[in-house]
Amino acid sequence: MTQQSDINRRIVLAARPQGAPDSSHFRLETQPVPQPAEGEILLRTVWLSLDPYMRGRMSDAPSYVPPTALGAVMRAGTIARVEQSRHDGFKPGEWVVSQSGWQDYALSDGHDLQRLPLAARQHPSWGLSLLGMTGFTAYMGLLDIGQPQAGETVVVAAASGAVGSVVGQIARLKGCHVVGIAGGAKKCRFAEQTLGFDRCLDHRDAMLASQLRRHCPDGIDVYFENVGGRVFDAVLPLMNPRGRIPLCGLIADYNVSTPSALADRLPQLQSAILRKRLRVQGFIITQDYPHRFGEFIQQMSQWIADRRILLREDIYQGLENAPHIFTGMLAGDNFGKVVVRVAPDEP
Amino acid sequence: MTQQSDINRRIVLAARPQGAPDSSHFRLETQPVPQPAEGEILLRTVWLSLDPYMRGRMSDAPSYVPPTALGAVMRAGTIARVEQSRHDGFKPGEWVVSQSGWQDYALSDGHDLQRLPLAARQHPSWGLSLLGMTGFTAYMGLLDIGQPQAGETVVVAAASGAVGSVVGQIARLKGCHVVGIAGGAKKCRFAEQTLGFDRCLDHRDAMLASQLRRHCPDGIDVYFENVGGRVFDAVLPLMNPRGRIPLCGLIADYNVSTPSALADRLPQLQSAILRKRLRVQGFIITQDYPHRFGEFIQQMSQWIADRRILLREDIYQGLENAPHIFTGMLAGDNFGKVVVRVAPDEP
Repeated sequence: MTQQSDINRRIVLAARPQGAPDSSHFRLETQPVPQPAEGEILLRTVWLSLDPYMRGRMSDAPSYVPPTALGAVMRAGTIARVEQSRHDGFKPGEWVVSQSGWQDYALSDGHDLQRLPLAARQHPSWGLSLLGMTGFTAYMGLLDIGQPQAGETVVVAAASGAVGSVVGQIARLKGCHVVGIAGGAKKCRFAEQTLGFDRCLDHRDAMLASQLRRHCPDGIDVYFENVGGRVFDAVLPLMNPRGRIPLCGLIADYNVSTPSALADRLPQLQSAILRKRLRVQGFIITQDYPHRFGEFIQQMSQWIADRRILLREDIYQGLENAPHIFTGMLAGDNFGKVVVRVAPDEP
Repeated sequence: MTQQSDINRRIVLAARPQGAPDSSHFRLETQPVPQPAEGEILLRTVWLSLDPYMRGRMSDAPSYVPPTALGAVMRAGTIARVEQSRHDGFKPGEWVVSQSGWQDYALSDGHDLQRLPLAARQHPSWGLSLLGMTGFTAYMGLLDIGQPQAGETVVVAAASGAVGSVVGQIARLKGCHVVGIAGGAKKCRFAEQTLGFDRCLDHRDAMLASQLRRHCPDGIDVYFENVGGRVFDAVLPLMNPRGRIPLCGLIADYNVSTPSALADRLPQLQSAILRKRLRVQGFIITQDYPHRFGEFIQQMSQWIADRRILLREDIYQGLENAPHIFTGMLAGDNFGKVVVRVAPDEP
């Protein structure tokens, strides 16, 4: 079903997944396009961001995001155009960054909207990535918690992805030795040849641990943890004293609903934190760093203008495809930042 | 064998323990009292400090302290008197804090010596505790990593011990709600009635988790981790967002040589760090904070003068008893800071 101008298509949560979600956990519904009341804006979704953290919202288990109710629209960051406005702060045709979710149209009273950053005007979907949540996550996690110094070694997983690719590029800009970890030779080549990582290793390689040791001859000073799972086991023994581990995501664990049969690794981690005096710190960008968004936008806009930071986007078409794009992303099918073009007639 | 003035008794590491050490891992040897060369000092040990971290030195497994060689003297912090001096910086009769270890006499070239803090002159063994390593550990870990704010909840294990008792008292001075955890009713009563903790819970209580929940109605903001083991499992679910976990010791794990048969708790910890944006940070006082020792001594001396900080010492007699005192301490037999009086004729 394609978009019609008087119909709002919306994708709602149909069931809570145990383990990996599939299309049965989503439902496409239609309703008339809603009408804005006084003080409201009608938004038309142009770009929809799909991100691993949304898996957390599908469960009612404790998560760092509140759960989506059964039957409610899947939430997501979007780039939208103002279609109609009864709010004196917004004019029809303006671009905004919104939280309108997996649907064609949405109402807002403006409190959850931001102007699209100037540097994203030529490329609006960057407001969801380089100049939005994923870029901001990379920037603050690496610089504020990771505190990389020139000459140090920074390791980042999901190296071609929306967060990891930016972490690695910023670390290079700071003069670090950067080793990425990614799934498959193509992603690794991209990280090395296009993004300028010193090295990128395949996490499917049975020799990952020894490869990592070889390519981090001075140990690891910062491990940017955005995947979880077994990569951590290869990284931990190589962490240097006073190493830092910013932790912003655990995609490898999101679909795991049964306890692991592995031996308990908690004492090992505690012992490594003590022996090596590590700092392991979780953060949620929207909660911990809103006061530094301006600084981020200014710096990132400059890097983009100077062509010092690149982003690979995986651009998909059509709201109706969001469920299988999303489930594929959780399985590692994506290459870079996943965005869905919802309004085909917009840039 | 008691002390004779021309004989140096020394306790050496006889064998490396697997699991809990016992007296067979130590050996008492004698040798003539050594003679200082030009530039050296002969020290007489008066007080010997016994601390859990010494267990790490008995193993050659990776630890945060270097291993003691087989046949070498067990190392330890001591309070000593200068017996003879051929060093122009030290005079006979002076008190020093040294690293002379489990023996009656030792030579030093002065580089590893510190003057006994003024506030410890009336009570020299405090140079090993309140005004020494354990007090300094409590002070920096709580204030620099834990950063407790008035009204927050601080939980500390080994609440009657050398580090935990000071952590809790400083947290009270900062206006926090303080809950201790200790082994047995006597230690708990001491923490509540003498040290002024708001509450102290027995870790042997099968209901520890629910007791802790009840007595931390606003959750836990700082958990000072100095024991490891299962207390952590009761604490983690109660940690508040942006909570801090300074980690300076894992006594419960030191004697464990076989991997746990428990299910893997690592993913749970990682998930909690992410969801709650926790900061977990290891530190080793002698490596991370030497530049702040002066500040600590000044503040702690003031608190002692004002009678705002107390310490319970477990005072034992006789170097020859050090092995069984030490192994008992690892089993939780001690109540407060363990010190051994080596020179009975000194204060």
